[in-house]
Amino acid sequence: MVQYILQPDPTAAGLTRRLSGVDQNGDTQQVNVVEERPLTIFLNGQEIVTAMTIGDYPEYLAIGFLKNQGMLAAKETVHAVDYDQELETVVVRTDGTTKYEEKLRKKTRTSGCAVGTVFGDMMEGLEGLRLPTTPLRVSWLYALSKTINTTDSLYLNAGAIHGTVLCQEDSPLVYMEDVGRHNAVDKIAGWMHQTQANSADKILYTTGRLTSEMVIKCALMGIPVLASRSGFTAWGVEIANQVGLTLIGRFRGQRFMCLSGQERLIWDGAHD
Amino acid sequence: MVQYILQPDPTAAGLTRRLSGVDQNGDTQQVNVVEERPLTIFLNGQEIVTAMTIGDYPEYLAIGFLKNQGMLAAKETVHAVDYDQELETVVVRTDGTTKYEEKLRKKTRTSGCAVGTVFGDMMEGLEGLRLPTTPLRVSWLYALSKTINTTDSLYLNAGAIHGTVLCQEDSPLVYMEDVGRHNAVDKIAGWMHQTQANSADKILYTTGRLTSEMVIKCALMGIPVLASRSGFTAWGVEIANQVGLTLIGRFRGQRFMCLSGQERLIWDGAHD
Repeated sequence: MVQYILQPDPTAAGLTRRLSGVDQNGDTQQVNVVEERPLTIFLNGQEIVTAMTIGDYPEYLAIGFLKNQGMLAAKETVHAVDYDQELETVVVRTDGTTKYEEKLRKKTRTSGCAVGTVFGDMMEGLEGLRLPTTPLRVSWLYALSKTINTTDSLYLNAGAIHGTVLCQEDSPLVYMEDVGRHNAVDKIAGWMHQTQANSADKILYTTGRLTSEMVIKCALMGIPVLASRSGFTAWGVEIANQVGLTLIGRFRGQRFMCLSGQERLIWDGAHD
Repeated sequence: MVQYILQPDPTAAGLTRRLSGVDQNGDTQQVNVVEERPLTIFLNGQEIVTAMTIGDYPEYLAIGFLKNQGMLAAKETVHAVDYDQELETVVVRTDGTTKYEEKLRKKTRTSGCAVGTVFGDMMEGLEGLRLPTTPLRVSWLYALSKTINTTDSLYLNAGAIHGTVLCQEDSPLVYMEDVGRHNAVDKIAGWMHQTQANSADKILYTTGRLTSEMVIKCALMGIPVLASRSGFTAWGVEIANQVGLTLIGRFRGQRFMCLSGQERLIWDGAHD
């Protein structure tokens, strides 16, 4: 019996809805469908973005989003997170205004949208970054994949959702799901920021593709291993090699491809 | 032999890269991986957003993005689209400044990021919108799925990419792929804007999930049928019912679910 610290609760109210439709034979069917709602994230007095989310863990999502966008420094103390379900807003309050707010005001005067510039900031954050060379046992990968895939989840109950799991060795610790693949990762980042979790000994498992932004997020979170059942983009692989991230993709059952950090793999896994 | 107007060219230079890695047995393997690069979109003098894209059809992507974000009215004439491969920018030039630029300047003064507000604009665009009640033959769906899935594509060659296909009856017409599922749809929108294509008799097929934003885009494009091999979100289904969009999901082989517009289906499809 695996002990998660946090794991999906498919029975939780408000995360799925039972809808009626017809199948390919014209027969009426009831299906579970995931919810999706807007959540507008504020940093102190500054509106930052409206995210489409399933709606659970709004505080972790907001903190993690700001952290992963480089708007919240590691040392910055979040002294309050005010979530208003009715207004669909969450306000992250830090001690004093953050450097980012000034920057944002300046940028938005000249540039239409902060998001374009924020990606540049994320890239800057990578300069000189080298992740710890934590070894990875192939047997851990197989154990994690088996446990995660058999954990009751919104994915198994309703589909159309992405999952991200923070793991340590062969144990999954925190399993987050969301309609946006990035939201699920941001919720993990929010949890890590609030619990001051150590990142050097962690493995991040995601159902999402290994794009540049996913790889950058994992690197900025300080996690040295990123594994996905989906595939790669060339830029994602490039960045992984640059920062020393062990990158595992196309990972299903006991098959995978490693395109970065293969020298850190320990081949103790059972093979077919 | 199906005649596409535009279809993927997996052999095109610069869209995929051959990378070396190791598989689950530690054996060195060569794999094709899709490229991903930033493209900054300008509307006249205004920087709008930086999109991560595979890089083909930047002009269609830019026009379609602006159109789908409500920044470019149907009647607005694009008199030039300047793509600079080196600077990774594309500038869409319209006759005079668009209403949107003023609006954006106003909004960005009060709100951190235009994207949050733009979604509001997209919702506004739906008010009072009713799509034509175009009938849909189930046999068309099966024919399209078969043709599209056997069309040589970046997906078949490298994976980790989304596809969107503009179709008419049982014929796929324009097949676009991109690392971002929304980019592929935006490229279709850009092509439709530039060719002044009729939308009432079209079907949009996507590999992406049927989220609110995907449904809104399809509706604003005036296309009455949206089909996906992926699943639904509750809000996506709600909007589809509101605007009279026929929504087909979980569509693989000869299995699917219809959660909106089932009364417009014609049951002439072959069943197993």
